[in-house]
Amino acid sequence: MIRIAIIGMGMIGTSLGMALRTADAQQSTLGAVQIVGYDQEQSATRRARGRLAIDQAARSLAEAVQGTRLVIIATPIQAVRNILGQLALLLPAHTIVTDITSTKAEVCTWATELLPESIYFVGGHPMAGKEQTGPQAADPDLFRNAIYCLTPDARLPQAAIDTVEALVTTVGARPYYIDPAEHDAYVAGISHLPFLLATALVEITSRSPAWREMAPLAASGFRDTSRLAAGDPTMYRDICLTNRAALTRWINETIGFLVEMRDHLEDADAGQLEACFTHARQSCDTWLNQQPGQRPGEAAFENPLPPGERPGFFERYKPPERG
Amino acid sequence: MIRIAIIGMGMIGTSLGMALRTADAQQSTLGAVQIVGYDQEQSATRRARGRLAIDQAARSLAEAVQGTRLVIIATPIQAVRNILGQLALLLPAHTIVTDITSTKAEVCTWATELLPESIYFVGGHPMAGKEQTGPQAADPDLFRNAIYCLTPDARLPQAAIDTVEALVTTVGARPYYIDPAEHDAYVAGISHLPFLLATALVEITSRSPAWREMAPLAASGFRDTSRLAAGDPTMYRDICLTNRAALTRWINETIGFLVEMRDHLEDADAGQLEACFTHARQSCDTWLNQQPGQRPGEAAFENPLPPGERPGFFERYKPPERG
Repeated sequence: MIRIAIIGMGMIGTSLGMALRTADAQQSTLGAVQIVGYDQEQSATRRARGRLAIDQAARSLAEAVQGTRLVIIATPIQAVRNILGQLALLLPAHTIVTDITSTKAEVCTWATELLPESIYFVGGHPMAGKEQTGPQAADPDLFRNAIYCLTPDARLPQAAIDTVEALVTTVGARPYYIDPAEHDAYVAGISHLPFLLATALVEITSRSPAWREMAPLAASGFRDTSRLAAGDPTMYRDICLTNRAALTRWINETIGFLVEMRDHLEDADAGQLEACFTHARQSCDTWLNQQPGQRPGEAAFENPLPPGERPGFFERYKPPERG
Repeated sequence: MIRIAIIGMGMIGTSLGMALRTADAQQSTLGAVQIVGYDQEQSATRRARGRLAIDQAARSLAEAVQGTRLVIIATPIQAVRNILGQLALLLPAHTIVTDITSTKAEVCTWATELLPESIYFVGGHPMAGKEQTGPQAADPDLFRNAIYCLTPDARLPQAAIDTVEALVTTVGARPYYIDPAEHDAYVAGISHLPFLLATALVEITSRSPAWREMAPLAASGFRDTSRLAAGDPTMYRDICLTNRAALTRWINETIGFLVEMRDHLEDADAGQLEACFTHARQSCDTWLNQQPGQRPGEAAFENPLPPGERPGFFERYKPPERG
């Protein structure tokens, strides 16, 4: 029986609890679990308990982590630093800590600064989400077949990494090992940039004086392209603030592309327009079809290296030495 | 019994045929219909016939339009001009012609130039689509509850407009009367700009040297934001070329917005970022929820004026004088 604390009973934290509690203990390398939940909003903890996401509701961080071997920080990014500082004082040696936030470089730096070396931090980021927030939006199947990024430091004991990997596979996700800085650069392109483009679309059209007459014409194409703009504004604010450099680079690329398109329009250059649109369609198709049977859009997945070969991965990525 | 010719057995033309043939003749103001289909690719006409979209397959445009009171041009934009030129010689007086293409100003200008005044052209554009093309992708329910733009000239006889409106309601769509230039400006924002943003996202990420490693991380957010980029390249090429001015204006707005976002990132301006994201979320929610029970995203719909009041509409929009 492994006792796991989940700090933060939002949509992701509650979904993790539900997925862990409904997993088959016989099939899971974690074995039987007992989940303690804590949220500074007691009503959120109560709602998570009502959805059977946790075995036990804690009234403080200290109570939540008592006797746990694994602590999952499932709060917004801006709360993580403070919680890491408190955990440094609360946790016994060899406790494993992971998180679920959308950018990894800053969070991993905070963990290195704040936690003693005897506490093992493995940064995590499940590539699954929805616009809705809070425990009422939780879904035990949220992580099924999703990619789950893990950004362990090279010097962590293998057992700590294995435990977090077991968490990932138990909730039905697929572990993907990656360096924190690379993670942030990549998700800026495939996750944060799409959010910014969706927001751009909604903002410039809805601010237009003609919006009232345009809106009825907007159909499923507009709906899908703008969907991400309905995401949580404070979450995206913090994502942007903790991933500024990478996101700025992608914004510049986008501006460059739009200027190119504007030039083709000005020149009425049918050939260039068609070539570009044809290439985009091919890229879409390739991405969507590379591994049929997978979740749509989670295609070209490389299996993570088997555990014995993982040092090779760390040699390849050369993460910064731990202070 | 009204005989209708559909020119072009692509996804939209075939869907129209299926929707018309499966409609309840008792309920429809068109009454019983007989559909003749024609495509310059005989295999497309055959496939449409196989899907029961047409009663009769024609082997030439002349054969298709013989004895018809209503001709629907359902070809790509670049073919419309040529077909209008041929129809000018083929059709008897008082025949009604409509089309389904995505931009309306150029098409309406061609119709005015090429057709005699005794042939009544009502520009049309159903706000419904999918990425797949061809008769095999057709769907008789494609138009159900969709907005269907109509851009009749002010001087057309009311009976011609009523016939095309009956076509629209028979296939389950809702007529939306609009001036051609306004139509083009609006759809540039809510339909063609989303396509360009989806294409931008796919192109700049898939051209990146890191794409192979980024692609597995891309999940449902990337999939939905990029979906439109899988659309038909030649169709979008022609949309762009026939809607250059409006699209250029929206591109400039987008670049302005992205520069604003880049500045906020550079200043780490949490307040501005959050304010913008909050406004975008509110706009999304308002748009999606304005009329619950409608198709998602086809919300804030204003009912078209009842037929008796339509001259008011034309006074309001003052379309350019004909001829």
